[in-house]
Amino acid sequence: MRAVDLIRKKRDSGEHTGEEIDFLVSGYTRGDIPDYQMAAWLMAVWIRGLGPAETAALTEAMLHSGEIVDHSYLPMKKVDKHSTGGIGDKTSLILAPIVAAGGLAVPMISGRGLGHTGGTLDKLESIPGFNTSLTLADFRRVLQGCGLGLIGQTAEIAPADKKIYALRDATSTVENIGLICASIMSKKLAEGIDALVLDVKTGSGAFMSREADAVRLAEVMVDTAKRTGKKAVALLTDMNQPLGRMAGHSHEVIESIDVLKGQGPDDLRTLGLELSAWMFYLGERVKSVEDGRHLAEQMIASGKALERFRQCIRLQGGNERIIDDTSLLPMAKFRVEIFSPKSGFISATRCRDFGIALAILGGGRNRKEDQIDHGVGLEFYKRIGDRVQAGEKLVTIQYNSEAKLAEAKNLVASAFEIGEMATPPPPLISRIIGA
Amino acid sequence: MRAVDLIRKKRDSGEHTGEEIDFLVSGYTRGDIPDYQMAAWLMAVWIRGLGPAETAALTEAMLHSGEIVDHSYLPMKKVDKHSTGGIGDKTSLILAPIVAAGGLAVPMISGRGLGHTGGTLDKLESIPGFNTSLTLADFRRVLQGCGLGLIGQTAEIAPADKKIYALRDATSTVENIGLICASIMSKKLAEGIDALVLDVKTGSGAFMSREADAVRLAEVMVDTAKRTGKKAVALLTDMNQPLGRMAGHSHEVIESIDVLKGQGPDDLRTLGLELSAWMFYLGERVKSVEDGRHLAEQMIASGKALERFRQCIRLQGGNERIIDDTSLLPMAKFRVEIFSPKSGFISATRCRDFGIALAILGGGRNRKEDQIDHGVGLEFYKRIGDRVQAGEKLVTIQYNSEAKLAEAKNLVASAFEIGEMATPPPPLISRIIGA
Repeated sequence: MRAVDLIRKKRDSGEHTGEEIDFLVSGYTRGDIPDYQMAAWLMAVWIRGLGPAETAALTEAMLHSGEIVDHSYLPMKKVDKHSTGGIGDKTSLILAPIVAAGGLAVPMISGRGLGHTGGTLDKLESIPGFNTSLTLADFRRVLQGCGLGLIGQTAEIAPADKKIYALRDATSTVENIGLICASIMSKKLAEGIDALVLDVKTGSGAFMSREADAVRLAEVMVDTAKRTGKKAVALLTDMNQPLGRMAGHSHEVIESIDVLKGQGPDDLRTLGLELSAWMFYLGERVKSVEDGRHLAEQMIASGKALERFRQCIRLQGGNERIIDDTSLLPMAKFRVEIFSPKSGFISATRCRDFGIALAILGGGRNRKEDQIDHGVGLEFYKRIGDRVQAGEKLVTIQYNSEAKLAEAKNLVASAFEIGEMATPPPPLISRIIGA
Repeated sequence: MRAVDLIRKKRDSGEHTGEEIDFLVSGYTRGDIPDYQMAAWLMAVWIRGLGPAETAALTEAMLHSGEIVDHSYLPMKKVDKHSTGGIGDKTSLILAPIVAAGGLAVPMISGRGLGHTGGTLDKLESIPGFNTSLTLADFRRVLQGCGLGLIGQTAEIAPADKKIYALRDATSTVENIGLICASIMSKKLAEGIDALVLDVKTGSGAFMSREADAVRLAEVMVDTAKRTGKKAVALLTDMNQPLGRMAGHSHEVIESIDVLKGQGPDDLRTLGLELSAWMFYLGERVKSVEDGRHLAEQMIASGKALERFRQCIRLQGGNERIIDDTSLLPMAKFRVEIFSPKSGFISATRCRDFGIALAILGGGRNRKEDQIDHGVGLEFYKRIGDRVQAGEKLVTIQYNSEAKLAEAKNLVASAFEIGEMATPPPPLISRIIGA
């Protein structure tokens, strides 16, 4: 087998066998296949596409490029959730404690912010002392202690993905459903889980802004998980506006704690409960999603979920007192408010621009090595469908530096569309795929 | 400007500006743009294509990556011919002396055999002592001495082409009309010529077997030459069977000398005269192609063309006595004849297989560094449309080693299609493009 022939095959819209994909991924990971051949193949894949069997084979080859974490020391089923990313999407911080409190294990390996979206690790690191770079041995100790653990990708996990992702980033071959699926799923399957709930975002703040693309990605990911013997379901959820009222690192930890205390905004609480319910159901903790919803509600009402979050913070080296006193979280020094320029109804938001504004304020990275500011954030007061008066407050921006404030302010202010007629709010969960 | 954005643009079927193509080619040649980015761009180009302006810009950028040879010391116009390659295509050895004898300069930079096709340099090197690796200074001296010179690509000429060609070869991005055109034309334009005649082959022995592809390549090359201020025309010529009766290195030198002596097969003489005629016309030596044809015939009849070839051989270090005694050329030791299995008419040939058979016998290379055997060859006795009797001789194979003879023999024997009805022979020259 020669790489040049496999490149030609994909260039000419051929379908690869599993052996061919193995040859490419293992050869590239070992360094036998050079970057330039992989780059040409990735571009051919980007344009010609990967079929379901090819996507599953790519996922498996990338998964087997590294270790699959063994959690057999845990007696309960292991479940996880993955979100394709958005603005204000902090459900991991809510559902992981709920599901662990309800009796399943949640060995979650998360990512950092990417482009305009936030990342779970960055949010957690706003908690003083919280360590997301545990060794696998320490990760196991945390999981044994509280049933959940939240860390970043280690060198042992799917090294092929790390190498291929860096190459995709440099060769404009990122946004392809088969490649995205394999990248996400190879890492998630390496967690050694039994079931996975996928939160696939669609709308103006999602990577897949068109619903049809999001549906296709969801279908491919669910199909790939099932081909590799895992239970999986995808919820297609709305990202035409931020999830919850808060975006930013400390901001989102605070709002997550609110929900775990039985408060917080409706949309965030509902999605957190719904994703938890599916995790309970796929993890065979309950007989129906309905039962899962009740169990999740109980875990909040009883305070058990909050208690698990507290344990997790402690076990991962963080200051658990932030739960009772959120002023211990870093908060930017200044605030500026944005008011509605006219009366009417919020009809839409350019949701991605909120994420870009947050990144501009220091909450995101331009390059991997950039430091981020955990104290900056946005608080939203209006949602799509809400009536608004001229001069009424739309957003509070919390910031530290005036340097790029004007640019961020303009982005936020112009991201709201205000119409004369009431627009019905988009449904929070529009489809369940793979159930 | 960033390479990653230009890759994305081509991936999404965008059209590059000249500046963008300059940025890519000069950045890649300098080493600022890595192989993997160029590879991804080349695959995007292969699939999405290059428009005429992009192809011209790529050609110019590659041309200007190196030196353009200055032949201003020569008072006459400088012209050249390029063929896209075939079997038995030795017209360069005929037309270069004819055109030089007729008063124009032919500073020809040629290539080696590629795949199933022969190369002018390899053929010339069958002449004992003939040096095709002259310095540019020696090349000028040869041109001043006899009006023609025949050398290989030097390091100074279009280094971007050398680097990009090697990458295309390793990434399955060779067969694309825009990329082929830029590769050919950047080298030819670096010769410092005023006009170029293109011999674009089509048929079973050509790289472009489909006529529509050959026409498109011809149009793009003529268009590119004109955009860069050169006169150019393309002749679409037949490669459904070998050109002339001989294929192989010494074999083709012998047949070329035959034509320069006023003998040789009709098809080869006709094409040699026709290409010379166009070179005379584009080089403004004559007022019409018809006049060019007469001038070319005179150069043969007077012996002046043969004399120029003799001078060129001498000036490039070769043994000029081969002209009077072709037995001084290397000739393989053994011969085997192939006879027709049945009576009928030659209706077609798998012409490419003749070239592959010749390469198998040692006349071609598998890898760049392979030595070739100048003494092996094929002599053909029948052409498409000819009547043939069962047992009548079709081909003589001249060979040195029995090792792969059987394979080569089978390829040659099965390359003839013999039908019951007479097939009209394909026209030698089917179209003139750009006149």
